[in-house]
Amino acid sequence: MEKTFALSCPLPTTERKNIVMGHGSGGKLTAQLVQELFLPAFDNEYLKKLDDQAVFRAGSARLAFTTDSFVVTPLFFPGGNIGELAVNGTVNDLAMSGAQPLFLSCAFILEEGFPVEDLSRIIDSMAQAARAAGVAIVTGDTKVVNKGSADKLFITTSGVGLVPEGVEISASRASPGDVILLSGSMGDHGMAIMSVREGLEFEGEIRSDTAPLHTLVRAMLDAGEVHVLRDPTRGGLATSLCEIATASSTGIEIHASAVPVREDVKGACEILGLDPLFVANEGKLVAFVPEVSSEAVLAAMRRHPAGQGAVAIGHCVADHKGMVLLKTEIGGTRILDLPFSEQLPRIC
Amino acid sequence: MEKTFALSCPLPTTERKNIVMGHGSGGKLTAQLVQELFLPAFDNEYLKKLDDQAVFRAGSARLAFTTDSFVVTPLFFPGGNIGELAVNGTVNDLAMSGAQPLFLSCAFILEEGFPVEDLSRIIDSMAQAARAAGVAIVTGDTKVVNKGSADKLFITTSGVGLVPEGVEISASRASPGDVILLSGSMGDHGMAIMSVREGLEFEGEIRSDTAPLHTLVRAMLDAGEVHVLRDPTRGGLATSLCEIATASSTGIEIHASAVPVREDVKGACEILGLDPLFVANEGKLVAFVPEVSSEAVLAAMRRHPAGQGAVAIGHCVADHKGMVLLKTEIGGTRILDLPFSEQLPRIC
Repeated sequence: MEKTFALSCPLPTTERKNIVMGHGSGGKLTAQLVQELFLPAFDNEYLKKLDDQAVFRAGSARLAFTTDSFVVTPLFFPGGNIGELAVNGTVNDLAMSGAQPLFLSCAFILEEGFPVEDLSRIIDSMAQAARAAGVAIVTGDTKVVNKGSADKLFITTSGVGLVPEGVEISASRASPGDVILLSGSMGDHGMAIMSVREGLEFEGEIRSDTAPLHTLVRAMLDAGEVHVLRDPTRGGLATSLCEIATASSTGIEIHASAVPVREDVKGACEILGLDPLFVANEGKLVAFVPEVSSEAVLAAMRRHPAGQGAVAIGHCVADHKGMVLLKTEIGGTRILDLPFSEQLPRIC
Repeated sequence: MEKTFALSCPLPTTERKNIVMGHGSGGKLTAQLVQELFLPAFDNEYLKKLDDQAVFRAGSARLAFTTDSFVVTPLFFPGGNIGELAVNGTVNDLAMSGAQPLFLSCAFILEEGFPVEDLSRIIDSMAQAARAAGVAIVTGDTKVVNKGSADKLFITTSGVGLVPEGVEISASRASPGDVILLSGSMGDHGMAIMSVREGLEFEGEIRSDTAPLHTLVRAMLDAGEVHVLRDPTRGGLATSLCEIATASSTGIEIHASAVPVREDVKGACEILGLDPLFVANEGKLVAFVPEVSSEAVLAAMRRHPAGQGAVAIGHCVADHKGMVLLKTEIGGTRILDLPFSEQLPRIC
């Protein structure tokens, strides 16, 4: 009981002496850091929404703007590398507001001694990912720090996109009755990284699902109204659902049996003692859609290459506001909560 | 003679095995990295301009977009800290296109164990700098890496600003006859950092000049036409001038005696064997202005708090295209060239 209490109410960050790995988990400690330090200091209506991007007007244009640092290790993994992850990650954060991604920036922090050949491969992957997503990398920066002052290479990508008039997508818009749609299987990216790090071998390698999702989003918006979009990266599907439940003050119910998880990912998770619902994805999205348009949106997803495995996994309810309930396969109910600390460090 | 040749034609980056500190110097090796790796891969008209920001249309708005990673050490220094440096740096990169800075993002890479109190101070400085510059920090990201995988804290800020119609400022626009104006003394930021690192003590501490320059720019644009604006950060005034001479294919002549350098900065440079023309500034700008508007623009600069020490330091010429000549105080002429490698690592 003591432990449960400690898990749900971690020591405030402002009462801690030092930053711990969990502050970068995307879970409870990250949320606390944002709530206690960033929000009070930077205090503005855009940041307060806690979406993965800010949407604002600049002149007459309605823009989305986002940033992410990538510190994944290893830099190269089955299915991708840090470069395309950085491009697709920023494209997706823009797309989750319904924006058409347009322009990206990239800032490199390199460790002295980093192989030029590896850098060249990473840059080529970024260029290829940008072309595939129809965005241009238009500005950048390069810093080099002494050997030992950084671990090989960190990339920070930021992006600007154009949000069509009338499109209003935000975690705060989830409403009772909304159907929750998921574009495909969970946990592929996280387990691709962990398999390499832990030296696990499976029949048929687990590959990262890194992919741009903006054309899938466009197809969905053409099919019907969408209230919320999130790409469940760091912290996985469970973390995204908890954030949406909190931001919108609605209850969420999902069915464990409806969430697709590949057999090899499930196996790897079991070996490492991880829950696939908390494992990062880099090419999947979860959508909250009004019931009336849910069938049309789901059908549109299934017609798109990035959404062929799309399924409905649950719905929003008026009860237990702010809470996420998972109906288990044996008929029980489990409350999903933000992970307290770092399940999978440096996964993206 | 051999040495001179080696200095002006360093080994191509693509023929090197590893990244060296000079690739982050802002000098010749950085330029080479950009020319050999980034430009061919990312290939687009915006990046090719090699300005410190990209200017493009999104919908009907004309926007400036920029990014910079900050890896300065120490994090706290006389006159500022990494947080306000990151905000002012991005505000200034936007301002150098004539843009009104509007929205900033910030991405933190934290080393496990970093003191929460220091982070809190840095965030508060960022908030204060943002308020002072009239910009909002609207989106962000936090990653934490294991102890030893980063040196304390790196911050990447990106920014979006609105460029007024008709304003066309770019390094490529320098023209013979342009008068070169400088907003104040050179080398303050770099020597503030180096004095702390080297434990130098002077009567009256050397302080960083970190400051936002967008209202100075607005006052200048109200007074007359401006062709080029640059904030001479990493690599100092000399590097900015060399970049402008190359981008515009014009000759540049400046007078050493006209460039203001504070006595204590001059002293510190002499002790450390540095040339103040190559030392970073964080609250100064250099402007290329058509002769006809140069007096009005200079007067407007002097009326502004950030430009009280503004002076004319030289002009553009039709001769020696792409070269920067420094007329020395004893009547000689010296060619200024991009620094080959890293004079002052991790200065910003």
